[in-house]
Amino acid sequence: MSVPALRTPPRRVLMGPGPSEISPRVLAALSAPTVGHLDPFFLDVMNETQTMLRDLFRTQNQLTLAVSGTGSAGMETCVVNLIEPGDRMLVCVNGVFGSRMADVAGRAQAIVSTIERPFGEVFSPDEIAAAVKQLNPKVVGIVHAETSTGARQPLEEISRIVHDAGALLLVDCVTSLGGIPVEIDGWQIDAAYSGTQKCLSCPPGLAPVTFSPRALELIQNRKSKIQSWYLDMKMVANYWSDKSRAYHHTAPINMNYALHEALRIVLADGLETRWVRHRRNHLLLCSGLEAMGVEYAVAEEYRLPMLNAVKIPAGVDDKAVRAQLLNEFGIEIGGGLGPMAGKTWRIGLMGETSTERNVLMFLAALEACLVKQGASVRPGSGVAAAIAAAGA
Amino acid sequence: MSVPALRTPPRRVLMGPGPSEISPRVLAALSAPTVGHLDPFFLDVMNETQTMLRDLFRTQNQLTLAVSGTGSAGMETCVVNLIEPGDRMLVCVNGVFGSRMADVAGRAQAIVSTIERPFGEVFSPDEIAAAVKQLNPKVVGIVHAETSTGARQPLEEISRIVHDAGALLLVDCVTSLGGIPVEIDGWQIDAAYSGTQKCLSCPPGLAPVTFSPRALELIQNRKSKIQSWYLDMKMVANYWSDKSRAYHHTAPINMNYALHEALRIVLADGLETRWVRHRRNHLLLCSGLEAMGVEYAVAEEYRLPMLNAVKIPAGVDDKAVRAQLLNEFGIEIGGGLGPMAGKTWRIGLMGETSTERNVLMFLAALEACLVKQGASVRPGSGVAAAIAAAGA
Repeated sequence: MSVPALRTPPRRVLMGPGPSEISPRVLAALSAPTVGHLDPFFLDVMNETQTMLRDLFRTQNQLTLAVSGTGSAGMETCVVNLIEPGDRMLVCVNGVFGSRMADVAGRAQAIVSTIERPFGEVFSPDEIAAAVKQLNPKVVGIVHAETSTGARQPLEEISRIVHDAGALLLVDCVTSLGGIPVEIDGWQIDAAYSGTQKCLSCPPGLAPVTFSPRALELIQNRKSKIQSWYLDMKMVANYWSDKSRAYHHTAPINMNYALHEALRIVLADGLETRWVRHRRNHLLLCSGLEAMGVEYAVAEEYRLPMLNAVKIPAGVDDKAVRAQLLNEFGIEIGGGLGPMAGKTWRIGLMGETSTERNVLMFLAALEACLVKQGASVRPGSGVAAAIAAAGA
Repeated sequence: MSVPALRTPPRRVLMGPGPSEISPRVLAALSAPTVGHLDPFFLDVMNETQTMLRDLFRTQNQLTLAVSGTGSAGMETCVVNLIEPGDRMLVCVNGVFGSRMADVAGRAQAIVSTIERPFGEVFSPDEIAAAVKQLNPKVVGIVHAETSTGARQPLEEISRIVHDAGALLLVDCVTSLGGIPVEIDGWQIDAAYSGTQKCLSCPPGLAPVTFSPRALELIQNRKSKIQSWYLDMKMVANYWSDKSRAYHHTAPINMNYALHEALRIVLADGLETRWVRHRRNHLLLCSGLEAMGVEYAVAEEYRLPMLNAVKIPAGVDDKAVRAQLLNEFGIEIGGGLGPMAGKTWRIGLMGETSTERNVLMFLAALEACLVKQGASVRPGSGVAAAIAAAGA
């Protein structure tokens, strides 16, 4: 039995749909000595992490913690804890992650109804109102920031509609949290999940979740057992509770160190500062791409600053460009997902990735790639437009 | 909103039921720069990890990979992929983790039957044969190394019985893998799961799993959807397959770096060498504890070398001793779980923790604690016995 050699990763600039660039501070925290999952030190880390997650989600929700899995485990956690077999759930699908939520809900034995919008578009309050009226669901699930399309779904009015109908609102905040406003209490969101590897700039591996008192009450009064033992919030919450600390599973200790440090960075920056920075760098990228004739796949009003979905210019080879970016420049961007495959690129400006330096570097590298592809791009035009926008 | 201070963990010696001591090499790998989950570099890491996991499990099973959650997520993965609603499953319960498997199976809508043995004991082939004959289950679940009791369950004969009855054998190898023989192909185990934080000496966060061709066929021919999207092996296997690489979820990149490096260490040592080392250090500990009058909670034949469950001597304060070990000596051991709470300590000698140095240090520290408790222990007696045993 032969043992492979030590693997040393190449140095990438992560400008795809996540993971994003990680601060050396977070990597250092990740590799701090492991302690036990009931060590007093670790319990302090958990307490502080919960407090910081509440600040991040802008909520007072007691049940706020990091699930021991990636963002999709966070999605599954929210669904399987809220849904009992036979419950009606309405899922709004305008991208891959809405589809995924409907799939997860079906597996949880919900009676799932979906309403759909084409990839890249968002739902109007009227559409939601009509569907809620018709279906009378227990839970309405919707994606705040569709990572597959780059579209931002406004939520405030939808939340009123959902609550007026007596339903609970479940929101996917994987890509939005930390990059644009997410107001769990302000918008009265009942359950939300995110991931660590987007605007929090922590490696993937944990899923921050939060549940409103109303959602918690519903979970505590369930008639049936939660179908997942691993994601059972009644038990997981007991481990995260300073009062009980009942052993549930061995938490991913070092990943929690990393999240603690990533949250410290985010909150020390200040959420508002980060929202402004994400927006500013998005607008610089936008100016540059526009000058190069590269169009966005989403209407201006609904564009996500941290996930820029753009149309691949006619005649340009999707895979060749992404390979050149990766191999020559060490820059990762994402391809399209689902019906957008081969048609769009997804350029991430999430967390630590969202810097003016990265925008300029990316525009210059993309220009080089497009010139190689024979596209009608004047080298330097995108960079010049971004520099002008930055000075404006 | 105030931001907490940087948290720097204390330096513990992890001699509990896991996590175990982590090599600096593994911590360094953990903090290597993050790359994307579809980066060619990461795909190579995945391929090599699969190959090493097959060597570790002693199997040719194609479907062998690391689930993106801790050991309990590995348990749930095995159960929910094999079980369809209404399937009969027999679970052998002689500790906390057997109980957990029965709970997980019930949530997967299995018709669950259990047979039980007191904590610390193991099942005889005859008992299994009788239960299998009576119940005709589709799957039989059993724990190889009960982390809650320190008992090793022999599996070879049981495997024959289970297969003769046409059932599949599902085995919990969380604590055994890498520390005592686990022969997936040799013993014809159909599905097995483990964790990274025991004898592999990697931080917690991933769950190695393996499925036999027979188990894989059963999964592929299911009539119902797998109830967990996150743990759906049909989809996860497509991401781990060199042929498809279909995006499923964003893998915990850095945790996979760490596992890759931990496996390199284990396999370069050699499995047989590690088994011998685990056994040798266990026997040294045994000699020392015996000389101090501390008794094991498990019959000699079935003791696990990596998880030593011992009876707390009469009149000794469980929590005071564990607190003194932790606070004065920086040594973590485990308390008892379930009916063993307050009655046993669990002393881990797993992976990197299993050294003669740690055994001697622990015996000396425990002597100090027992003396403080007023127990009738001659200081130095345990250490002397261990030194004598090491020289014998």
